[in-house]
Amino acid sequence: MKRLKVSNNVIRRLPRYLRKLDELNAQGISRVSSSELGQQLGLTPSQIRQDFSCFGEFGQQGYGYHVPTLREQIGSILGMDRSYQAVLIGVGNIGHALIDNFCFSDWGFRLTAAFDVKPEVIGSTFNKVPVLSMEELPRYLDENPVNIAVLTVPKDAAIPVTRILTAHGVEAIWNFTNVELTEPNSSTIVENVHFSDSLLSLSYYISERIDERSARAAREARREK
Amino acid sequence: MKRLKVSNNVIRRLPRYLRKLDELNAQGISRVSSSELGQQLGLTPSQIRQDFSCFGEFGQQGYGYHVPTLREQIGSILGMDRSYQAVLIGVGNIGHALIDNFCFSDWGFRLTAAFDVKPEVIGSTFNKVPVLSMEELPRYLDENPVNIAVLTVPKDAAIPVTRILTAHGVEAIWNFTNVELTEPNSSTIVENVHFSDSLLSLSYYISERIDERSARAAREARREK
Repeated sequence: MKRLKVSNNVIRRLPRYLRKLDELNAQGISRVSSSELGQQLGLTPSQIRQDFSCFGEFGQQGYGYHVPTLREQIGSILGMDRSYQAVLIGVGNIGHALIDNFCFSDWGFRLTAAFDVKPEVIGSTFNKVPVLSMEELPRYLDENPVNIAVLTVPKDAAIPVTRILTAHGVEAIWNFTNVELTEPNSSTIVENVHFSDSLLSLSYYISERIDERSARAAREARREK
Repeated sequence: MKRLKVSNNVIRRLPRYLRKLDELNAQGISRVSSSELGQQLGLTPSQIRQDFSCFGEFGQQGYGYHVPTLREQIGSILGMDRSYQAVLIGVGNIGHALIDNFCFSDWGFRLTAAFDVKPEVIGSTFNKVPVLSMEELPRYLDENPVNIAVLTVPKDAAIPVTRILTAHGVEAIWNFTNVELTEPNSSTIVENVHFSDSLLSLSYYISERIDERSARAAREARREK
């Protein structure tokens, strides 16, 4: 598929489109218009058409989009039809939770090994993923075509581990450490997971709800006078 | 502060503005223009001005924004200057990781209790948060003004626990279960955390990189002929 330079904001919306299309697929819905899609995702139809036009023409004027085809095309744009090799560094709570519960293979990733410094986890296997010693990491990276490292180490290990990763050819880091990885090779692709972003949206909506409720109560109090 | 109805997309961008402003603050930068901010966040200056205009006037034409003031105003819009009470349900790996590492109080939330069914964790305290039995949940919710529940239970417990939460007045759920909570009271605010969204963006950028590299290699091969 031909690629054009696409803005970061469009890329960020593609996974949301994908989830919605999976939902429609599961409901047996095979055709959707840009206005229906927009309504369900809180976007304007023209925004949606514009997003999709970055990648070529998907829909047909007046007929909407064919859900399975659009799903496949967006998946392919996102690289889900490729197979990437991943390793995970740091088998603490978050690392462990990802190994056990996150289905990497659903998204085109093979998680082939995890690494830790703790003797009590080295040598064990979680969900078919072996935990190796951190000392083995450089050689493992040299001998295997690892595309991405999932970084779930404690904060103070984030920068030193990142240096090892980039020195041994890892090009992309999925960063759960909340440490700004300013150190890596400038060509390293870093995706930071910020739990707080989603909590703050929630906080906004709670505030709005509380404000509306007080405003209503105030109006009613005035009326009763 | 007066509230207007603001689109979901604007709300989603506010936490990113907040993080960037914290960064600028930490660097001792006290003034920023919408074009500088836009450049750093991959947004157009007019997009940024438009976003901020939803909440009133923050900047002064030609002078840019005062970083600490803007930071405070956005924090206040997001409800960070209020104090919300939170409970966490399900002290598995993810739940445990959040209790230990996620600084709820930084974002205006007090995590006052966690709940689980496992006898081995009930009665313990992690990071000053007591773990109570699930059986105590309904009474706890009736007696405490809990605004939000962090849902980190296994998939099959997601819906039954959500029913308890909404029946006992919880208005907002921060959902880590990957289960679509279609069941709750329609007025419940649900924020789903989808790890895959950020992994898929990463996947896109790796694909792009690989494609660029093959295109370059192909061009060079042609040139050498």
